[in-house]
Amino acid sequence: MSAEIPAEALQLRSLVRADQTLELFLDVVPVPPPGPDEVLIRVEAAPLNPSDMGLLFGGADMAAAMASGSAERPVITAPIPDAAMRGLAGRVGTPLPVGNEGAGTVVAAGESPAAQALLGKVVAAAGGGMYSQYRPVNVALCLELPAGATAIQGAASFVNPMTVLGMVETMRMENHSALVHTAAASNLGQMLNRLCPEQQIPLVNIVRKPDQEETLRAAGAVHVCNSASAGFMAELIAALTATGATLAFDAIGGGRLASQILTAMEAAAGAVAASTGAGGYSRYGSAVHKQVYIYGSLDRGPTELVRSYGMAWGIGGWLLTPFLQKAGLARVAQLRDQVAAGLTTTFASSYTAQVSLPGALSLGAIAGYGRQATGSKYLILPSHVA
Amino acid sequence: MSAEIPAEALQLRSLVRADQTLELFLDVVPVPPPGPDEVLIRVEAAPLNPSDMGLLFGGADMAAAMASGSAERPVITAPIPDAAMRGLAGRVGTPLPVGNEGAGTVVAAGESPAAQALLGKVVAAAGGGMYSQYRPVNVALCLELPAGATAIQGAASFVNPMTVLGMVETMRMENHSALVHTAAASNLGQMLNRLCPEQQIPLVNIVRKPDQEETLRAAGAVHVCNSASAGFMAELIAALTATGATLAFDAIGGGRLASQILTAMEAAAGAVAASTGAGGYSRYGSAVHKQVYIYGSLDRGPTELVRSYGMAWGIGGWLLTPFLQKAGLARVAQLRDQVAAGLTTTFASSYTAQVSLPGALSLGAIAGYGRQATGSKYLILPSHVA
Repeated sequence: MSAEIPAEALQLRSLVRADQTLELFLDVVPVPPPGPDEVLIRVEAAPLNPSDMGLLFGGADMAAAMASGSAERPVITAPIPDAAMRGLAGRVGTPLPVGNEGAGTVVAAGESPAAQALLGKVVAAAGGGMYSQYRPVNVALCLELPAGATAIQGAASFVNPMTVLGMVETMRMENHSALVHTAAASNLGQMLNRLCPEQQIPLVNIVRKPDQEETLRAAGAVHVCNSASAGFMAELIAALTATGATLAFDAIGGGRLASQILTAMEAAAGAVAASTGAGGYSRYGSAVHKQVYIYGSLDRGPTELVRSYGMAWGIGGWLLTPFLQKAGLARVAQLRDQVAAGLTTTFASSYTAQVSLPGALSLGAIAGYGRQATGSKYLILPSHVA
Repeated sequence: MSAEIPAEALQLRSLVRADQTLELFLDVVPVPPPGPDEVLIRVEAAPLNPSDMGLLFGGADMAAAMASGSAERPVITAPIPDAAMRGLAGRVGTPLPVGNEGAGTVVAAGESPAAQALLGKVVAAAGGGMYSQYRPVNVALCLELPAGATAIQGAASFVNPMTVLGMVETMRMENHSALVHTAAASNLGQMLNRLCPEQQIPLVNIVRKPDQEETLRAAGAVHVCNSASAGFMAELIAALTATGATLAFDAIGGGRLASQILTAMEAAAGAVAASTGAGGYSRYGSAVHKQVYIYGSLDRGPTELVRSYGMAWGIGGWLLTPFLQKAGLARVAQLRDQVAAGLTTTFASSYTAQVSLPGALSLGAIAGYGRQATGSKYLILPSHVA
């Protein structure tokens, strides 16, 4: 180990206590030497993604969070409701590291040629526990950034880019030809709006606010529907008729939006059948399979399905990891190369705030990234000392 | 055509009028000669299945139905609510024949050898429009009943038997090893309770009433859970843990039952992981895919999904016809042979009432079969004159 690598460093941890309290704190953990096939990354940037929030907050009521500890070692505690506690039995008493992805400089490497090749390089990694100052990661989980790219540019090069590529791959694997996306003005949604035109894939964007509509249209989006507007269903049916989209990815989860999308898809299928003369009444609705995948839970409330779209429909959970397993290592490697090539263009992310590790554990920052609002995206810089 | 075949005969028709009124009546239609590959069936028995109700009633409010016409030619009218009317545009003004399946004697046959071979035989047919006195049907849709079997025994030999076989086939095709079934005391549910033990498939039955519980237990069912009982969730989790069932077929559709099943499947997956030491907390829930197919709508209200079962879940519509297309002609022929062999045993149906065609259009009969209650199953005998 080089002299500049400390023996111990900070790591953000999330603990569910048996007394139904969540505790977030910075732990001092040993910096281990990398294994033969590992590299030790000095983590310089790691995003607070919506997909990190479940592990970080454990369903606690963050509106009731309290701060204690020191400025350098803040501690956040928050009560966990009974309903959330039931799903957490497996993690009670074990402080868990957090942070799906991040990027930084390889400061030590194991003996394998693949590990040695990364020494001194800036890499992105989806290793988990990335809200750490130092993190050993298997080389298979690392992506060497293109020359000149910074850790901040590469910090979010896994979750969002692979998710949008996964959506497009899923669309093709399941024989759809166009996509619907909700919460479409998010970082991920904007990425999808760059990717889809490149691949000639029609995309219907659903947002909830007029300024989000404008953001997407200004970026060139063709189909943007505002679910809060009075003409929403008519606009959505028109967009679905124009695009033929029968697959949606929904980041919201709760409420009636998924069901409205299926209803509009069925109406669009009927409109297409009528215009082509292929119509005719079927008591079971159209034979076109209509699918909504829920990949997020911005609304944690119940999903309400008003089943008025025949029998050829499905709704279900969609998660990146099982998709990657289904796609296979070779295909994933191709997709990673695509991401590297488009890191500062198609797959670029932007942030509204950068915080240090202690800064991430302030009530103000938690109120900012915890609400997972579009246009409120935080980046942790673990090497910075607040 | 033989002298005993009339030139015209009765057929039950369902008409959606532009004034949002449903009209059910008996039409006098010509009895056509069979085409080369068709047989003419004198229909002797046809069941009123739940799957016939959508076409028959068109979503009309049957509690507000009125009777007119004569005893021989009754006419039923009922108002159609706005919400139901939207899905019916394709059938306004066209009186549609009804009746997915039935059985009777082949009284005339086309010139093809397959058609000629059925002349004089008692056959079951899934030809549609079976609430008719005479019906020409393509031989491919006919099943010759075993010697000695009556039309009444064969009347329901398609929809329910092929549906239970389809459930088992779907289970195998999608890599599950046990089944959950709701509304499990129905004719279809009882059939499934005979089929599954024969094939060594563990089956979890969900019913809503104590007497239905007793019916199934008396018939040998091992796992029976009553969704109206206080201990329902605990009992369901225990049954799912014992059977490992991760696939459910739900006839109810509305309400929270489908979501409860997914919740219990997730709890069972956790219990199994804990007992085998394969546990450990995952923020995304178990990796086991949990699926509910809705194949009926006994509750037409919204389906409410309280998403607390991770991300590896799906819910969707399931319909016999697309399943048969997926299974392929050769496999379907094998399944039809299975049905014929078990017509009076595994695949037997029973009825609470038999009615003539005019009798089927009485307000009393409609109140009986229209509520689709378990233990209230009607059979039309179209050749009978009331």
